[in-house]
Amino acid sequence: MKNADTTTALSADGVWEDLRLAPGLFRGDSPLAEHEAASLVVQGGVLRWVGPSSALPLDYAGLARHAGGGLLATPGLVDCHTHLVYGGQRAGEFAMRLAGASYEEISRAGGGIVSSVRATRAASEDELFAAALPRLSALLDEGVCAIEIKSGYGLALEHERKQLRVARRLGQALGVTVRTTFLGAHALPPEYAGRSQDYVDLVCSEMLPQLAAEGLVDAVDVFCERIAFSLAETEQVFQAAQRLAIPVKLHAEQLSDMGGAQLAARFRALSCDHIEHLSQQGIDAMQAAGTVAVLLPGAYYTLRDTQLPPIAQLRAAGVPMAVSTDHNPGTSPALSLLLMANMACTLFRLTVPEALAGITTHAAHALGLSDTHGLIAAGRPANFVLWNLREAAELAYWFGHNPARTIVRQGRIVKGA
Amino acid sequence: MKNADTTTALSADGVWEDLRLAPGLFRGDSPLAEHEAASLVVQGGVLRWVGPSSALPLDYAGLARHAGGGLLATPGLVDCHTHLVYGGQRAGEFAMRLAGASYEEISRAGGGIVSSVRATRAASEDELFAAALPRLSALLDEGVCAIEIKSGYGLALEHERKQLRVARRLGQALGVTVRTTFLGAHALPPEYAGRSQDYVDLVCSEMLPQLAAEGLVDAVDVFCERIAFSLAETEQVFQAAQRLAIPVKLHAEQLSDMGGAQLAARFRALSCDHIEHLSQQGIDAMQAAGTVAVLLPGAYYTLRDTQLPPIAQLRAAGVPMAVSTDHNPGTSPALSLLLMANMACTLFRLTVPEALAGITTHAAHALGLSDTHGLIAAGRPANFVLWNLREAAELAYWFGHNPARTIVRQGRIVKGA
Ligand SMILES: [Zn+2]
Ligand SMILES: [Zn+2]
Repeated sequence: MKNADTTTALSADGVWEDLRLAPGLFRGDSPLAEHEAASLVVQGGVLRWVGPSSALPLDYAGLARHAGGGLLATPGLVDCHTHLVYGGQRAGEFAMRLAGASYEEISRAGGGIVSSVRATRAASEDELFAAALPRLSALLDEGVCAIEIKSGYGLALEHERKQLRVARRLGQALGVTVRTTFLGAHALPPEYAGRSQDYVDLVCSEMLPQLAAEGLVDAVDVFCERIAFSLAETEQVFQAAQRLAIPVKLHAEQLSDMGGAQLAARFRALSCDHIEHLSQQGIDAMQAAGTVAVLLPGAYYTLRDTQLPPIAQLRAAGVPMAVSTDHNPGTSPALSLLLMANMACTLFRLTVPEALAGITTHAAHALGLSDTHGLIAAGRPANFVLWNLREAAELAYWFGHNPARTIVRQGRIVKGA
Repeated sequence: MKNADTTTALSADGVWEDLRLAPGLFRGDSPLAEHEAASLVVQGGVLRWVGPSSALPLDYAGLARHAGGGLLATPGLVDCHTHLVYGGQRAGEFAMRLAGASYEEISRAGGGIVSSVRATRAASEDELFAAALPRLSALLDEGVCAIEIKSGYGLALEHERKQLRVARRLGQALGVTVRTTFLGAHALPPEYAGRSQDYVDLVCSEMLPQLAAEGLVDAVDVFCERIAFSLAETEQVFQAAQRLAIPVKLHAEQLSDMGGAQLAARFRALSCDHIEHLSQQGIDAMQAAGTVAVLLPGAYYTLRDTQLPPIAQLRAAGVPMAVSTDHNPGTSPALSLLLMANMACTLFRLTVPEALAGITTHAAHALGLSDTHGLIAAGRPANFVLWNLREAAELAYWFGHNPARTIVRQGRIVKGA
């Protein structure tokens, strides 16, 4: 995992010539035919003009030139659902399970989510930063330019704070847009066993207000499920978020239909995520509220799930679908967003354009970043990727490699200069 | 996809210190406790000594030192089943299928294996080389040190020759061990429609003897299936191989139980590959013959197959199991052998040690390279990888990234010098 060091990165200012823009993922300032050579103009780290090379306005003719070599260009990728900051990892548990260990044996050996909570609590902020850095670098090296990072392995004020502070530091250190999500209601901490309401009260009245006051919370999330938090508890957390005017999102209907999507839609949630068991009422409510459906095929794959999310119904209803890694140490130790696009096609039967919008435009939407990320368009910060590929479909077709040749992130060339 | 340029590579000669050798994948010259710091001695590009750093013989004390940094070391990976050399690619067909195109529509649009045959025949040797180079480079960049490359998209003497010559050239250009497999009996070429026997006669009496005489054939393979070649036709090809003393392998029991494994075992085949529908008789025959079972989870995944290979029975019988990419443009455009190890665990429930032996020791076995590849041991060419990881289980646990930090291939440091 390489560390894309921003301190040595070069300015991307100038005219990027001879590119092929991936269909559907750009907004041109002048009409562009399919396969026509395109140019992008970057000034002061911002995209100023997008269109056919033949129509480049004269004003820009004197700028520095970057040869695009006929490569495919997309917006920077957006990973809109991750649990990237945590202590330890669970490879040993993965191996034990395959060797035939029972749930109880793994639990006795200290496995499961509790082991991640324990390791996260035991780690210092610097240790959490160092552990997350190579994971984030792997994602960035493939062209991710904006990423969500959730808390939820601390489950106590000081430890949730540590996770969120590390998320912020990662964004600053690597020059990438990080959206922090407070997921204090991820699991009931062991010390609150049997006292779920007490813990939810703590989340709502102490943890969330305090962390929000520290500027650490861009969104609030809850794991609404029989094995986690109830619909009523979820609503209580959403109300606390609403009082602070912080947008919400939800881990919804992963294992059963809890009606979480309808609740989330009432709060105009940014997204409902997982949603394998989503009902038609949930779909309709999401559509009406403009809530994004976030699909997480890496978890579906790792869990060998067989319940597919209702793709055809989401498509018919016009609910935007995003695709994300759900990176986490238990159910999705995935480190490639392109692989998720392949899995979304192969396992969920998304079309290629849907999968590509899912890791760009709609993922940005799910983070409230629609105006700045997920689309190549004038007026936005320069975040784009040139791929060692000719056709957009190849992004989802090949799997297991990294074809990103050049990455421009926040106006700087961070790979392939 | 980076090109690991061998011309600038450095000699790996000297003492590699402070390594952690992955359990089961090395043979020590002195006893090594688990987690004990290990050293490797390389002289003249060959491993001379393997053991605990504390027991390094004095003879080697004066050699150059390479700091291992406590990293995990494995033998170079071995990809034992690929169709890496072909013209074109089939991303467009992948997209069409997801967009709902029928088999007939794809066929009318020029899709399917016939499109790869057409593109391969139309390509020059140099074009095939240029197309395969980035694919091979992607695999090598992850630590592959030996790879099998099959023909089978030419289906005529001159075009099969082109594929095999390109495979040889790739091995020379990149300094990697390439084993060529003649798969003339991959599919019936369009011009032989309805004349299967005539084509098999051509394969046996002209194509194979000629290509073997040119030194292009390390092994012979057949696709034995109802939609390809019959058991009798397979036997005819195997007899032709036997006359030339060339080892055989078989695409066997992928879609149905044809009895191919028993036939292959009678010819002491190196491997039977795919084998989702393998019977107990087939397993017993393979065990008796020392034939390796090659598992191809990338194709299983891409085809959304549900028929699992008989892993428990293979394990019980003691048949060695290898794991490979089956890289091909139709059913497995996979470019990561580590991802295949993850898929072998996740989808096929191999244990982690089985998956790791599957991409090293047993894969070497499936290529007849047991004495030179797939194990860190004195007397072998220096082929090994240092990973940005601490535990061997992490190789199969994380998925979608490339943690290879240092690669020594054929005695040269080709990455991370
Ligand atoms: Zn999640
Ligand atoms: Zn094959």
